[in-house]
Amino acid sequence: MSHAPTAALRDRHRIVRDAIVKAGLDALIVTALPNILYLTNFAGSSAIAIVDAERIRFLTDFRYLTAIADTRGTAHECPDLDAITVEGSYDGALAATLCAAPWKRVGFEAAHLTVARHVWLEAATRAPESDVSLIATERIVERARVTKDGYEIATMREAARRLSNVAKSVASEVRRGRTERAVAAAIDWSIREAGFERSAFDTIVASGPQAALPHARPTERTITEGDLVVLDFGGVYDSYCVDLTRTVVVGKAADRVREVYDAVRAARDQAVAAVVPGRSRFDIDAAARDLLTSRGLGDAFGHGTGHGLGIEVHEDPRVTRRRPDVDAHDEAVASGMIFTIEPGAYLPGWGGVRIEDDVLVTDDGVEVLTDVTTDLIEV
Amino acid sequence: MSHAPTAALRDRHRIVRDAIVKAGLDALIVTALPNILYLTNFAGSSAIAIVDAERIRFLTDFRYLTAIADTRGTAHECPDLDAITVEGSYDGALAATLCAAPWKRVGFEAAHLTVARHVWLEAATRAPESDVSLIATERIVERARVTKDGYEIATMREAARRLSNVAKSVASEVRRGRTERAVAAAIDWSIREAGFERSAFDTIVASGPQAALPHARPTERTITEGDLVVLDFGGVYDSYCVDLTRTVVVGKAADRVREVYDAVRAARDQAVAAVVPGRSRFDIDAAARDLLTSRGLGDAFGHGTGHGLGIEVHEDPRVTRRRPDVDAHDEAVASGMIFTIEPGAYLPGWGGVRIEDDVLVTDDGVEVLTDVTTDLIEV
Repeated sequence: MSHAPTAALRDRHRIVRDAIVKAGLDALIVTALPNILYLTNFAGSSAIAIVDAERIRFLTDFRYLTAIADTRGTAHECPDLDAITVEGSYDGALAATLCAAPWKRVGFEAAHLTVARHVWLEAATRAPESDVSLIATERIVERARVTKDGYEIATMREAARRLSNVAKSVASEVRRGRTERAVAAAIDWSIREAGFERSAFDTIVASGPQAALPHARPTERTITEGDLVVLDFGGVYDSYCVDLTRTVVVGKAADRVREVYDAVRAARDQAVAAVVPGRSRFDIDAAARDLLTSRGLGDAFGHGTGHGLGIEVHEDPRVTRRRPDVDAHDEAVASGMIFTIEPGAYLPGWGGVRIEDDVLVTDDGVEVLTDVTTDLIEV
Repeated sequence: MSHAPTAALRDRHRIVRDAIVKAGLDALIVTALPNILYLTNFAGSSAIAIVDAERIRFLTDFRYLTAIADTRGTAHECPDLDAITVEGSYDGALAATLCAAPWKRVGFEAAHLTVARHVWLEAATRAPESDVSLIATERIVERARVTKDGYEIATMREAARRLSNVAKSVASEVRRGRTERAVAAAIDWSIREAGFERSAFDTIVASGPQAALPHARPTERTITEGDLVVLDFGGVYDSYCVDLTRTVVVGKAADRVREVYDAVRAARDQAVAAVVPGRSRFDIDAAARDLLTSRGLGDAFGHGTGHGLGIEVHEDPRVTRRRPDVDAHDEAVASGMIFTIEPGAYLPGWGGVRIEDDVLVTDDGVEVLTDVTTDLIEV
């Protein structure tokens, strides 16, 4: 279970119910687990929630009933929740619930429900079984999640503080003769020791030429004099993700290393400085990209400048290039949004640099949640 | 990248192409990442594969192009692969590929493609853009994956050997005064030290009353004299998952502890003995369940006896109770299938026991891949 206070859950329900009414729906079927966690504090792996104007029907199986029962009467109890035990299949229980309820127009999450489940559910709720119409919806709960509430901000601030402490010690794990895999295992251990539930994703330790791959997996490659080593890691703290990258150099930095590093650091600083409520997320990306382009590294920066963080390690807003075929919804960033700033430069065969911090948009600017030096560390 | 030899990939392609022809399709869009890995050795997080009678069109973005290029000319190269670079959105690139190809009937994976993506894709490939019809398919690649090939069996045998070695040392991590979380972190460390890429799922350490929850998360609870402690952990080795559970007791086992433990162990033995090619997976479940029922523990065993293992930690076959609303496809187990046998008994407020091994169905019976004592260990 996550630990959002009951009052925070009540606020979230209100926002989602307003959106449900606005969409002309009687209820919304929530099948995406991060959305279910956001609305109910439930952190298990199987559940379906149906939100209507008054209640949340919560379907789960025997494995999780105790977890739900244990929150009753606590400060983290989900309000207005009716638990329904799933005995057979989840979709069978969902169809039975839909057929028994007085709803006519029921939304479902089109970005999460698969075609196979949708086809099955349509057939199982067809007249005369029920007069429910299933209506595709987009991002109703996700849109609420983009702006973090007070509980979420406090949780992620604490998580970022802990991850920064991990970051301060990781440079000392990078040693000549050690494999990337061994360094990654040591980082994962530190993340757990720092009180995280687990790593937020597979830790990246990319050394030498491997550092030119933005999503390299740790290999058996041995760290060697002169290597740039990209260290990208994250943790899940009370169900919320934080994410941080630093790049270190083994031995004395060559001139070209320092040049590329300084460019990426300047891009990071420019992008952070561009974060202010009302600013376009595409402009924040451009702030980093233009700096790198001015140093001749525009082509070396192939990914976006950042991504939202929260219950998922990649969520909205996406801080990316403006492109005709990429959805341009909700362009302006707003107070309460949390996302990464992570420019990089990748030079095939040579290596790469990435620097990543997590930032919160405040009422009048930006707060950098992660707090660890961006100076180039020579190990 | 995974390391299946080119010849194994070729065999897998043949099986899938036969199924495509049988379904009257010209091509199949594969969007589920485990299925993509099975067909191409690609282990990254973003790709789409389209299999037709001759070639595999493989769509990925710049982050992974090097990974694909690096396999060229190696023993693990995917045959007949045409790499296509995704510049903007994946579904945009997919639609463009579909419109440019000579196909008419193209299958998609209905259990994986979401309603939102399907709606978008239908619109983007509508006449006059193309004369492609998108056809829902079920389990074409998954059905091939259920029976492991020689490479997969060798890989999982080695993975199970390594996980058994981890299991032999975990009892010594269970110490009075240590928290469940600390024990879980130590197990995860051992899994990495044993050469696994990562843990296959969040390691379970459930002590005392927590052991009555089959899917407990490790807590700050301190391990105490008399506790039963369920230790359930797995590892990913060259992209393949193995999974193992042992239950230990802290101090001298009370009579009731031994009674429940012996019943679960006997259920495990009965179920393993029931594994033989041609046997119904429901009968294997019944072998464990009947034994527990005969000892008065039928109601204490709420989950299925086992699940298939491979690229995913939960896949077919599902070794469960026969139930009217659960899909009864492919009832008989066959040589080459690998799944867990993991009966348990959970008594709320008291604790629980689970014992789990991984088994391979052979031509004439069963091979238990995991190899560690099932005697009750008192720590």
